[in-house]
Amino acid sequence: MTAYAKLRELQITLPVAEGPVAAFVPTVRTGNLLFVSGHIAKRDGEPWVGKLGVQMSTEEGKLAARNAAIDLLATLHHELHDLERVKRIVKMLCLVSSSPDFTEQHLVANGASELLQEVFGARGKHARSSFGVAQLPTGSCVEIELVLELAD
Amino acid sequence: MTAYAKLRELQITLPVAEGPVAAFVPTVRTGNLLFVSGHIAKRDGEPWVGKLGVQMSTEEGKLAARNAAIDLLATLHHELHDLERVKRIVKMLCLVSSSPDFTEQHLVANGASELLQEVFGARGKHARSSFGVAQLPTGSCVEIELVLELAD
Amino acid sequence: MTAYAKLRELQITLPVAEGPVAAFVPTVRTGNLLFVSGHIAKRDGEPWVGKLGVQMSTEEGKLAARNAAIDLLATLHHELHDLERVKRIVKMLCLVSSSPDFTEQHLVANGASELLQEVFGARGKHARSSFGVAQLPTGSCVEIELVLELAD
Repeated sequence: MTAYAKLRELQITLPVAEGPVAAFVPTVRTGNLLFVSGHIAKRDGEPWVGKLGVQMSTEEGKLAARNAAIDLLATLHHELHDLERVKRIVKMLCLVSSSPDFTEQHLVANGASELLQEVFGARGKHARSSFGVAQLPTGSCVEIELVLELAD
Repeated sequence: MTAYAKLRELQITLPVAEGPVAAFVPTVRTGNLLFVSGHIAKRDGEPWVGKLGVQMSTEEGKLAARNAAIDLLATLHHELHDLERVKRIVKMLCLVSSSPDFTEQHLVANGASELLQEVFGARGKHARSSFGVAQLPTGSCVEIELVLELAD
Repeated sequence: MTAYAKLRELQITLPVAEGPVAAFVPTVRTGNLLFVSGHIAKRDGEPWVGKLGVQMSTEEGKLAARNAAIDLLATLHHELHDLERVKRIVKMLCLVSSSPDFTEQHLVANGASELLQEVFGARGKHARSSFGVAQLPTGSCVEIELVLELAD
């Protein structure tokens, strides 16, 4: 099943990819690697403001991470024109805005990791680091960056 | 001297590699690069819970980083079957759970960097970033990820 | 216009590259990729100590990020002997020492991103993640690492 068929099955419509809000570009390719800029989590098109361990639950954080992964897919669709060009999700970095005592960053990050594996199957299985940061740009609760291998 | 001979000399026995506790895989290879997931520091097989600048000293943090490096070696042994396949440790990211005023993350990270250089010699010399995070998964004090170049 | 001509136009004199203060090396090359260690921001040759959202403004943070980028260029000049060997700045990671409520890390990071684009033109356009950390080595306010593609 293609990534697009899986997205339809999951009833996910990719949003229009928005460009970065600052002085960088969404992706850079070098050889067969694609480095994807950090994407903050949004809700209804606006930054999903909040901090885990303060006013957000792990379940909400997991949903925010899933939203960030959907925006990452929108960026990949826009940049690659075809998600089937993704040979492998290599590495995820998942940053979780956290109080000093919130310790479930790995469960929050699963919201993104599980979606990528649903959409891409075996080629969605990735290495990962997740950790709690003091704050994120625009106050968003989650930020995710990726390294991919392209098929061509 | 091989990495294994050096480990014997250092009287280090590699533990059995444990799989990730969340929705990701320990390593992903792309070309000759191997991306290794973040490994949290453990003590006696359990997460080494603590925060630098609160209840842990720099020396304890350095030992925790060394423990994480030993677990990374265990993962590499499990995934590659032979540590001699490591051509170069390319890059380390060392995350240190820190109070807002602890500023010795680089000394903590040395616990891992120095071990990798002892075990691998010149091919253990790596680029590195280390910094203080608000918290880490399961409350561990240190988390380390690696990028390697493989010989074959 | 070469990177050196642009630096002269900007009236930037590269400092002498200083080696790392801990157990790592400034850069590691693998294939055509160059991984560059995190460089902390300095002022007058000393760590620029401070935290955004406490005693530093966004404008000061942006200047600190620009300083770190100049030191990164000094390291690249020292390691590569010729900045023209840089084919592309692929990826920047910009760490900003932040209070729990400072949310303009992306504007701070622009200080480095904009300089690299001034110096390198189109090959200076990069993917990026920026976020707020609890603290940085030696108390510096900003730390930046890079991944580059080399031309040869």
